[in-house]
Amino acid sequence: MGELIQFDKASELCRLIDRLAEFSDIAEDGDNAGVTRLLYTQPWMEAQAFLAGTMSDAGLAVRFDRVGNLIGRLEGSDPDAPVILTGSHVDTVRNGGKLDGAYGIVGGIAALKHLKETYGVPARTLEVVSFCEEEGSRFPIAYWGSGNMTGQLDWRSGNELRDTEGTSLQKAMEASGFGLIEQPDCVRGELGAFVELHIEQGVILERMAKQIGIVEAIVGQRRYSVSLRGEANHAGTTPMNMRTDAMAGAAEFIVRLEQLAARAASLVATVGRIQAAPNIPNVIPGTVEFTLDIRHDSERTLSWFCDYLFQEYEDIANRRGLALVITPWLATTPVPMNRSLTGQIEQLCGKLNLTHRRMFSGAGHDAQLFAELCPTAMIFVPSKAGISHSPEEYSSPEQLADGVSVLASLLYELAYEEQSK
Amino acid sequence: MGELIQFDKASELCRLIDRLAEFSDIAEDGDNAGVTRLLYTQPWMEAQAFLAGTMSDAGLAVRFDRVGNLIGRLEGSDPDAPVILTGSHVDTVRNGGKLDGAYGIVGGIAALKHLKETYGVPARTLEVVSFCEEEGSRFPIAYWGSGNMTGQLDWRSGNELRDTEGTSLQKAMEASGFGLIEQPDCVRGELGAFVELHIEQGVILERMAKQIGIVEAIVGQRRYSVSLRGEANHAGTTPMNMRTDAMAGAAEFIVRLEQLAARAASLVATVGRIQAAPNIPNVIPGTVEFTLDIRHDSERTLSWFCDYLFQEYEDIANRRGLALVITPWLATTPVPMNRSLTGQIEQLCGKLNLTHRRMFSGAGHDAQLFAELCPTAMIFVPSKAGISHSPEEYSSPEQLADGVSVLASLLYELAYEEQSK
Repeated sequence: MGELIQFDKASELCRLIDRLAEFSDIAEDGDNAGVTRLLYTQPWMEAQAFLAGTMSDAGLAVRFDRVGNLIGRLEGSDPDAPVILTGSHVDTVRNGGKLDGAYGIVGGIAALKHLKETYGVPARTLEVVSFCEEEGSRFPIAYWGSGNMTGQLDWRSGNELRDTEGTSLQKAMEASGFGLIEQPDCVRGELGAFVELHIEQGVILERMAKQIGIVEAIVGQRRYSVSLRGEANHAGTTPMNMRTDAMAGAAEFIVRLEQLAARAASLVATVGRIQAAPNIPNVIPGTVEFTLDIRHDSERTLSWFCDYLFQEYEDIANRRGLALVITPWLATTPVPMNRSLTGQIEQLCGKLNLTHRRMFSGAGHDAQLFAELCPTAMIFVPSKAGISHSPEEYSSPEQLADGVSVLASLLYELAYEEQSK
Repeated sequence: MGELIQFDKASELCRLIDRLAEFSDIAEDGDNAGVTRLLYTQPWMEAQAFLAGTMSDAGLAVRFDRVGNLIGRLEGSDPDAPVILTGSHVDTVRNGGKLDGAYGIVGGIAALKHLKETYGVPARTLEVVSFCEEEGSRFPIAYWGSGNMTGQLDWRSGNELRDTEGTSLQKAMEASGFGLIEQPDCVRGELGAFVELHIEQGVILERMAKQIGIVEAIVGQRRYSVSLRGEANHAGTTPMNMRTDAMAGAAEFIVRLEQLAARAASLVATVGRIQAAPNIPNVIPGTVEFTLDIRHDSERTLSWFCDYLFQEYEDIANRRGLALVITPWLATTPVPMNRSLTGQIEQLCGKLNLTHRRMFSGAGHDAQLFAELCPTAMIFVPSKAGISHSPEEYSSPEQLADGVSVLASLLYELAYEEQSK
């Protein structure tokens, strides 16, 4: 059973990715500024229009939904079978790369085009989606596309969300021709599966020399602000044993975080931002604030880790006479991918002779919004040096083609073959 | 031998201090903004004029030198004896307190007035100085007053030094009527002694419940910028063992600094400023820069400590794969006070029934510029909660009067009594 698709049109794939990257806000940084394509901006509109044309050229029926998600459809012969969906997001961070999001759309179109040209009409309808937004780069909200499609966000909720220039999401959406009551509803009926192809954005596949990453779960995240308050004092006239030094306390916190994180397998913990006050060389800092970003694939481990860490933090703060305030500001639960799909992907990698590794996604993705609704899977390809959200983002044409081979082979099994279940 | 002077005009002293504090730039912060009296500004000129009048009322002969140091003189009967000098600086930091600097001037005037009224003409000439500048708050230079008086700074060197509004020190000096070739030279002939009365600016006297601090040495200082460079990476997709996290490295550095400093008696070490990049919650910091401020009364200990610390820093950086750059930007050597004078002060405290403690000055003072030229001493009074450079700066009227009692008693011994040596 099964049809092994070795996608060999790497140059065509890269040409489309390069064309798409041209739709970017002209940045002040010059040539190496990367791609800036924020939701509902002019480059975003041009990129969606270009993708609509590309989908149409591939023989797909094209439509936009009410928030501007773009969908290309290859109608199946069984009108009652649930749709098999693939795709990713068209928006980028500021000064981002060519591949984050774009690869999953272009790869999806290439896969559907190849399947249609080679095998004709599928049994089950195949669709590829270009989600309007995922990064949260323009408005203080993320997953605007997949959130509306899965019913977890409401397309009418954009009035209070504003970009840095004060434009509301609602106004921006209307200005680009979306958000109209007569446009097709975002929320979908039953889906047979959602499969997202994406770059890894990490160093694991490259360091382990694997061609394909098979995502077992998207990690849960906890983010906190930690505030330590001691006493600002003269750096020269205050003996070491008479200080309540917020900086020394924060340093002990950060060292302890790293030590504990190293003990909890596959957990990651990061202090990305720090701010001391008064932040003057000859004054002992009276306050230090820093952020915690903690991620793991098990909700139980996340809870246990944070509870244990914060108990230690309390102890350290008490010993040092520092006032401690820990404020949570983001919490997402881990999202497991569908076991049957990950098993299928693993088998396909074996048949395609592609080295592979089961792994977690440490970053959030549109796929996590679908996992409760339908069988969901993610396929990763290696990122050079693990870099993403940067003009340096890179995967080789061969690596990109390998990902499409796996995606197309999986979509063939899901849409063309008789389902045993 | 000796005359014990118990200075009891605390209310007059405080009235003068309060009057002087009125000469301050009107700050935007409102009532609790403290004193802002920067070199050669209008409030500075008014304060010096007020002090000149106060000196004159005290029966002293008044003059300004070329950079605007104000001197009040009580002529002695022996024209060949070197002058005995006391005083401190009239300028303040921005939003500073009433006492830092001002106390030593007003206390000096009160002491000389009392001595003249009680004992008449001294054998040796007594002078009190209001140094024009010590804090380095307006121009990027400190000790402008005492530096010119001791010949360590040149009054013609202010052309390149500019305040935040672009005015040069030279221009500002000329605009306030100083810097003229025909004005009296700053550099003094031989001095018999310099004694500075100052608030402690630390918590030691208060915590130890001592009334007088006798400075044995002004500490040496070393300041450095420490830069750590690793790799900025995604906080979610980079496993703990694949990171070169500049923040984790900096935290280990700061913890180690505190541990080592606690072992070296009376050494103080501070990380006052820190800056991470890109300083975003979900990105592992690629670089962290922080400042080191290290002080001790022994040059050998300072050198040893910094050498040892930086060897450890190299080891930590190597283990973590971080690039380390340590840049020195300030180094002053410790300045011992005159042993004979500190002994005299200690004896006087005993006779005056004032509890006292020998200690180091962790802050720099005008006195350190005189120590190579003549016998030099400093007398400290307690600072409430160790606070200085703040509107909260406070010492009680009794504490302030105690300091003047010690100063006046010492000046009596130095200027009125027959010198055994």
